[in-house]
Amino acid sequence: MKKIVILGSTGSIGTSTLDIVSKFPGKFEVIGLTAGTNVDKLEEQVRTFSPAMVAMSDAVAAQQLRAQCQGLRTKVVSGAAGLVETATMPAADLVISAIVGGAGLLPTLAAIKAGKSIALANKEPMVMAGRLMQDEARKAHVRIFPVDSEHSALFQSMEGHRAVDIRRLILTASGGPLWNMTTEQMKDVTPEQALQHPNWKMGPKITIDSATLMNKGLEVVEARWLFDIPASQIEVLIHRESIIHSLVEYSDRSVIAQLGLPDMRTPIAYAMNYPERVPLDLPSLNLAEIGQLNFCEPDHERFPCLRLGYEALKTGGTMPAVLNAANEVAVQAFLNRKIGFLSIAATIRRTMDAHVSAEILTLEDALQADTWARGYATKIIEVLSTPSAVVH
Amino acid sequence: MKKIVILGSTGSIGTSTLDIVSKFPGKFEVIGLTAGTNVDKLEEQVRTFSPAMVAMSDAVAAQQLRAQCQGLRTKVVSGAAGLVETATMPAADLVISAIVGGAGLLPTLAAIKAGKSIALANKEPMVMAGRLMQDEARKAHVRIFPVDSEHSALFQSMEGHRAVDIRRLILTASGGPLWNMTTEQMKDVTPEQALQHPNWKMGPKITIDSATLMNKGLEVVEARWLFDIPASQIEVLIHRESIIHSLVEYSDRSVIAQLGLPDMRTPIAYAMNYPERVPLDLPSLNLAEIGQLNFCEPDHERFPCLRLGYEALKTGGTMPAVLNAANEVAVQAFLNRKIGFLSIAATIRRTMDAHVSAEILTLEDALQADTWARGYATKIIEVLSTPSAVVH
Repeated sequence: MKKIVILGSTGSIGTSTLDIVSKFPGKFEVIGLTAGTNVDKLEEQVRTFSPAMVAMSDAVAAQQLRAQCQGLRTKVVSGAAGLVETATMPAADLVISAIVGGAGLLPTLAAIKAGKSIALANKEPMVMAGRLMQDEARKAHVRIFPVDSEHSALFQSMEGHRAVDIRRLILTASGGPLWNMTTEQMKDVTPEQALQHPNWKMGPKITIDSATLMNKGLEVVEARWLFDIPASQIEVLIHRESIIHSLVEYSDRSVIAQLGLPDMRTPIAYAMNYPERVPLDLPSLNLAEIGQLNFCEPDHERFPCLRLGYEALKTGGTMPAVLNAANEVAVQAFLNRKIGFLSIAATIRRTMDAHVSAEILTLEDALQADTWARGYATKIIEVLSTPSAVVH
Repeated sequence: MKKIVILGSTGSIGTSTLDIVSKFPGKFEVIGLTAGTNVDKLEEQVRTFSPAMVAMSDAVAAQQLRAQCQGLRTKVVSGAAGLVETATMPAADLVISAIVGGAGLLPTLAAIKAGKSIALANKEPMVMAGRLMQDEARKAHVRIFPVDSEHSALFQSMEGHRAVDIRRLILTASGGPLWNMTTEQMKDVTPEQALQHPNWKMGPKITIDSATLMNKGLEVVEARWLFDIPASQIEVLIHRESIIHSLVEYSDRSVIAQLGLPDMRTPIAYAMNYPERVPLDLPSLNLAEIGQLNFCEPDHERFPCLRLGYEALKTGGTMPAVLNAANEVAVQAFLNRKIGFLSIAATIRRTMDAHVSAEILTLEDALQADTWARGYATKIIEVLSTPSAVVH
């Protein structure tokens, strides 16, 4: 039995992971879970899976959970220290990193340092401190298995082939819910519209990132570090149907790709069971029924966030962490109706312009850049959201 | 330096193989070549590559080649014995099996028994005696690397993944030059029309097989034996653009595929260099430029040859060898304008109906079925091609 810890167990990836655990009794034992504030859902998970330890980042929520779980064998801890304690449980074989956003960096890095294999769904830590994460993984002889559908596709398309023969990584992007809009039309997009993803059911943060194409910008950075491939060899291809999840081109011009109907359970299960696969009772891909797959180049004019991802990677150092932090703040402000859709990119652009990149040698370097960028982006948003200064 | 022998060096695959040899000096040494009747082309190859031995199946052609190559160090042999002698040269590391049709069975099987690795472009031996070929390969600890673009795609899509997790093989088919024709229109198709393949430049036999879809029928049989997967798990998908060369579905519904612009040099070079790849200076796949990939189910009514392939496999024993022999005879008769396009399938159908399948335990069993079927099909064609009895 593989002993697993799930960081972010009440989110979309976390619940899908537990769904897989339930479907394969005897394969996995859930020993640790963490969540932010969703007490009731975590309580339900505690009752079903009886983990030895759970952590809530919010101390008040943890207190409430403790009350609701009285008499159960599960230890409830809280705060950053609690997350790290759960992420590094000595018995854990595999840590599923599925916290949303930069908050995942601290516990994920702690798990790596503790020698745990990682199934990485939380792309932001890799964006913020990719080189550091990989350095620590090498030191601890830890493997990081991607869970993001695109990176899982790249990973699966590399298995059995020599890394030295890789010529290009091609990340596919659906283009998101606003793909056909003009910039003018995007001005007045509401959170409800931007949350209508055509192919994937995901959490709100990543769905907005899909609408701005920042998700793809972050994925380029993630791919750069996950696979140690320079940005110049990473391309993005718009593929509306999200059937080809990504592709790898080799030196002989042979391209290997991974395809499937959009369902996160496939990449989650692959990362959990690697190098084995488990039979999942999901509908099969039927290309004859789908009939047609479409492809085109991304439009960097209407979707400037993708280019910001490449720019941050080119500048390097703390810049990707700044990109990520400004994006998180801006997306939250958009969801809270404080700024318009176009102001997401504008906020990130201005924050990046104001930042002088420095090297990341330690976790603190990354966290400091993150904190600075959150502060700066928040200030920009305050200006943008005062009625007299609405800039879309 | 890998020492190679090419069976069928003057054909389309043979010349592409020599093209790769020329592009990577120091990687391969051509020690043996064989051809049927093309004396001048083989002479040119002898002068360029200085193989130790060449064989021509035609004795008169061999005599002429001997005269043209006087004074050169190359030994010229002939007939079936000469082909086998070349295929089993003691120094050979890899034999590229690229003879057209069933004539490749004898020398390819001899090469396997002699312990040579095989790069198999010649699908017919695997159709005629797949079980026997694989039994001998196992005994001799020989690996057979597919060169057919579809089977190379399947092979590449299996590397790094567990065979036990395979759920389906999906062979793609362009549908060939007559895909949009009604059966009525096919009646009057000329060899010139049927030789216009939309995507691949290949020899005449395989191009006609593409027009009838028999090529895909043969490929289903080939895949069954190459990969030891039952026919019930092998599907065919029409994909007009020939960009996805084939796909493998795994138990978790993940599908791995190999893609590329249609160019046989990629699968040939992969089989020759496995597990390495070499950089080929070919155009890269640009899906955004291609824009769209289309898929649909094969039409078994208009293209009965595909179903005949499945039927032959289901019956087993000598039936696939009979299917193959009748097809070769019928295709030749069509190319010679003795029968109409629709009579190709009709000839095979009647030959199969007249055959009682028996087990293949030895090469002779396969060759005997082959001989019988050629005789029977020839008789049917004689009837069909007498003016009073033209049946399309």
